[in-house]
Amino acid sequence: MALQMFDKERTLQMRQKLIGQSCRLFFSHEPLKIVKARGQYLYDENGTQYLDCISNVQHVGHCHPSITKAATAQMELLNANSRFLHDNIVQYAERLANTLPQKLCVFYFVNSGSEANDLALRLARQYTQNKDVVVLNHAYHGHLTSLIDISPYKFWKLEGQKEWVHVVIALAPLPDTYRGLYREGHPNPGQAYADTVKNLIDEVQNRGRKISCFFVESLPSVGGHIILPPGYFPKVAEYIRAAGGVFVADEIQTGFGRVGSHFWAFQLQGEDFCPDIVTMGKPMGNGHPLACVVTTKEIAGTFTANGVEYFNTFGGNPVSCAIGLAVLDVIEKEDLRANAVRVGSQLKKLLKQLQAKHTIIGDVRGVGLFLGFELVKDRVALTPATEEAGLLVQRLKERHICLSTDGPWANVIKFKPPMCFSMEDAERVTEQIGFILQAITGHIKISLTIQLNVLY
Amino acid sequence: MALQMFDKERTLQMRQKLIGQSCRLFFSHEPLKIVKARGQYLYDENGTQYLDCISNVQHVGHCHPSITKAATAQMELLNANSRFLHDNIVQYAERLANTLPQKLCVFYFVNSGSEANDLALRLARQYTQNKDVVVLNHAYHGHLTSLIDISPYKFWKLEGQKEWVHVVIALAPLPDTYRGLYREGHPNPGQAYADTVKNLIDEVQNRGRKISCFFVESLPSVGGHIILPPGYFPKVAEYIRAAGGVFVADEIQTGFGRVGSHFWAFQLQGEDFCPDIVTMGKPMGNGHPLACVVTTKEIAGTFTANGVEYFNTFGGNPVSCAIGLAVLDVIEKEDLRANAVRVGSQLKKLLKQLQAKHTIIGDVRGVGLFLGFELVKDRVALTPATEEAGLLVQRLKERHICLSTDGPWANVIKFKPPMCFSMEDAERVTEQIGFILQAITGHIKISLTIQLNVLY
Repeated sequence: MALQMFDKERTLQMRQKLIGQSCRLFFSHEPLKIVKARGQYLYDENGTQYLDCISNVQHVGHCHPSITKAATAQMELLNANSRFLHDNIVQYAERLANTLPQKLCVFYFVNSGSEANDLALRLARQYTQNKDVVVLNHAYHGHLTSLIDISPYKFWKLEGQKEWVHVVIALAPLPDTYRGLYREGHPNPGQAYADTVKNLIDEVQNRGRKISCFFVESLPSVGGHIILPPGYFPKVAEYIRAAGGVFVADEIQTGFGRVGSHFWAFQLQGEDFCPDIVTMGKPMGNGHPLACVVTTKEIAGTFTANGVEYFNTFGGNPVSCAIGLAVLDVIEKEDLRANAVRVGSQLKKLLKQLQAKHTIIGDVRGVGLFLGFELVKDRVALTPATEEAGLLVQRLKERHICLSTDGPWANVIKFKPPMCFSMEDAERVTEQIGFILQAITGHIKISLTIQLNVLY
Repeated sequence: MALQMFDKERTLQMRQKLIGQSCRLFFSHEPLKIVKARGQYLYDENGTQYLDCISNVQHVGHCHPSITKAATAQMELLNANSRFLHDNIVQYAERLANTLPQKLCVFYFVNSGSEANDLALRLARQYTQNKDVVVLNHAYHGHLTSLIDISPYKFWKLEGQKEWVHVVIALAPLPDTYRGLYREGHPNPGQAYADTVKNLIDEVQNRGRKISCFFVESLPSVGGHIILPPGYFPKVAEYIRAAGGVFVADEIQTGFGRVGSHFWAFQLQGEDFCPDIVTMGKPMGNGHPLACVVTTKEIAGTFTANGVEYFNTFGGNPVSCAIGLAVLDVIEKEDLRANAVRVGSQLKKLLKQLQAKHTIIGDVRGVGLFLGFELVKDRVALTPATEEAGLLVQRLKERHICLSTDGPWANVIKFKPPMCFSMEDAERVTEQIGFILQAITGHIKISLTIQLNVLY
């Protein structure tokens, strides 16, 4: 199979002409043309290898042969819709149920995290008969109309906040022990941050509004790779249920063992904590469009009781489920959760060593292979070093490493690599980050000096 | 590969336990377990063959080897997201552009018809800066929150009609020359039905509301396989544009040559007619989750100008586009549009012969392999023969043929088979329909007699 049909310049021209420009390219000034990938490595049209630290979707590694084999075998046999009985969908649901608290046992298969979150919203509203939604600031839950409405990350740039959406912004942008009001020295930040949600709920209810759910990523991602403090979810769940709502955990970025120690990131909040609805997506099909909502019998029951069919044309088809099953098999067979723990802690250790040398690294945080470090101009004021973060990503690309930024000030460098990421990869990337930070901090000082010379 | 893991009873039990019951099964009292399929044939766990007259998604035939081959080759090579440059997405967009009017030239790739329709709504609203939507009665545009809002087929069973949704119901349920106000004898039903939309637009505007779009299936499907009268779309487009809105053609059920004579069903409305936005889905990936929105430069331009990225995680990935390209290749190489014309007209002819014998068949309609026939108790009053339609479908299943009903009274039998449907298949199914109608009309009379005996 030819690796490319058009030269890169022509591909770019065609892309600019034929594809909506709202669909942005990585490194938009000098995008990469990637024609091949394997494991955690990408290859451009000249055969240059790039280390991939960001493709969380290709969870068990790009082009894993077990996944391709399972997909092909099922494509040869059957790919009908889920209105016929088939073993794959039920077997897959059973396997997923084994990773979840017993209460979460009724599944709906869909094609994307956005479809999953939209359905979660419908389930929560049908069950509670309430409409309003409580979300964290900077949250992003998907590209659909209904999800932009509950994504402050998007709606503040678009149509603004709807009257039925309530954003937890009291006192601090996020329940974050690095930047928020309650920081590492606080005796119980989980409780303290949960109380800010309680205050919001009270205020909303005093206005006579009725809450359907608290909708939250188990670890806020575009919000800046935030690790929520212990005890936060159980307390918030208590408050939201007392207000007649349900707790929706969005595991689209964080599920399937990325955090290493647990299969789901919400499990970091304690063995006893169980959301009412969980949504999953990105890593689920290793790149194949596959996503899911799981909920309780009671919530599924009220959705059935409305008497209206839910039909998702491709959702839960035999090929999607065969791929999903193959992903679960690889996670187990290659012990990728243990790898995430092992490589993740080594990577975190190496990043913390860099932090000791470079004052620009204000914080290193994360669990398993969901890691981030935050660049700041000043370790007391925590002024975001946005420009430096952008430069670092740019320089890493020149050294054939793909990383990217996140967070409200785009100053958090995020790691969400394929789960086969190795010790050597961790060393390679941190070594390069070290070199570049040395150069960048120098460069920035020089360019500032030049600017000053020009100005005065 | 084993064809089944659990026996049918166990699969059914697991399904009832693990999968949301809103996800319904075909023939729910005695569902089929399908383990294998090829072309237009399905096979159950005992190897029994069923003729598939309804799987429009498996457009070029179930498990077409060319599609599997293309998918496998690309899965082995790369399946990254569309933030990297890749040839497949631009090549595919170019190929699709060649099937469309020149004005429709900017593409957004997504994972399902529902995602496509939601994005179409966003595009229309962003461009027009208006919110309201005009739809036909009984329309269904998808399972997402935003689409249930514009689908009378669903919202009248759920939350009801929103103030920004306007349903064309004036004078008749649908612009249908069989059941509507303007029937076959009318000199210009297209104009007459378009005028009912005009009246609605006027009424809506008089109330100070602003219309973003007319959202319509090119051939209403769940509405009862309606063939819209000539001239209807151009006139409606004129009225909707004059009101500041755009025309969205939903081709999710009807695109990719199903109508035979044209690649898109909206083209049946004349060479000069061009919608402002077209959505496509179901048949596009032959079962793989793949869908798309295409629009004009102007509309795409305002969407870009809002400055907000549109990122669809799986949309337009190299595997999805490779599959889409392979589907286009098969449609061309196997000349499936010509087959749809040839077999479709033969099937229609055979159904019309049945109509001549069986008064219960009130109407036979359709184009290409988008066909339907309507059962009525009375050819003057057009009383829907709903029970008989259900029985016919049930009896056909017993004779190993899959068909189903549609329309507001579930009395329309719809044909949307894979496009490789053959002359022999057409003869087989019509012969069986003939036998069953003979028996059913007898049976119904007998059962009515028995009921009467019991009642009196």
